[in-house]
Amino acid sequence: MAEKLAPDTRAAALTELSGTGWAETPGRDAIAKTFRFANFVEAFGWMTRVAIWAEKWNHHPEWRNVYATVEVTLSTHDAAGLTELDVKLAKKMDALST
Amino acid sequence: MAEKLAPDTRAAALTELSGTGWAETPGRDAIAKTFRFANFVEAFGWMTRVAIWAEKWNHHPEWRNVYATVEVTLSTHDAAGLTELDVKLAKKMDALST
Repeated sequence: MAEKLAPDTRAAALTELSGTGWAETPGRDAIAKTFRFANFVEAFGWMTRVAIWAEKWNHHPEWRNVYATVEVTLSTHDAAGLTELDVKLAKKMDALST
Repeated sequence: MAEKLAPDTRAAALTELSGTGWAETPGRDAIAKTFRFANFVEAFGWMTRVAIWAEKWNHHPEWRNVYATVEVTLSTHDAAGLTELDVKLAKKMDALST
């Protein structure tokens, strides 16, 4: 089972992810980012690619889609906080969005 | 462009849709329903089928997915309220979920 990130690792990961628009979620040990696409097909196409990785890694996002926008929150429920899985999925989401 | 439903039509549609779990959204001229599935693959598979119809009809839901749950809100932004498109998409979502 994934363990919560150690403070140093967590700080380094958050610094790196903040460079691509991820931010800590107020009141939760989670990170969030809003992805914006050209239209619904682009947004949902990206979600579909992410969904396959999420299932493969058995780590799923909380996400809200309104037309071309997808608001994502990542946290590891089992660990009640951020783990390496969240960092890995965040980076995959970024990579798949470019 | 879709027009807001006339009061009688709207009432009849809401009565019918309430039978499958749709309810008016407080403070908005919109309807909402939470769909629950067996797991993420079932939930996202359903979203994918809905997404294709939504794009085909150029009428897209607001939806939030967390693992096996999808919270949906339907409203027609151009009409600032419920239209026939919302009723049609709600029924299609129900049909695709069974």
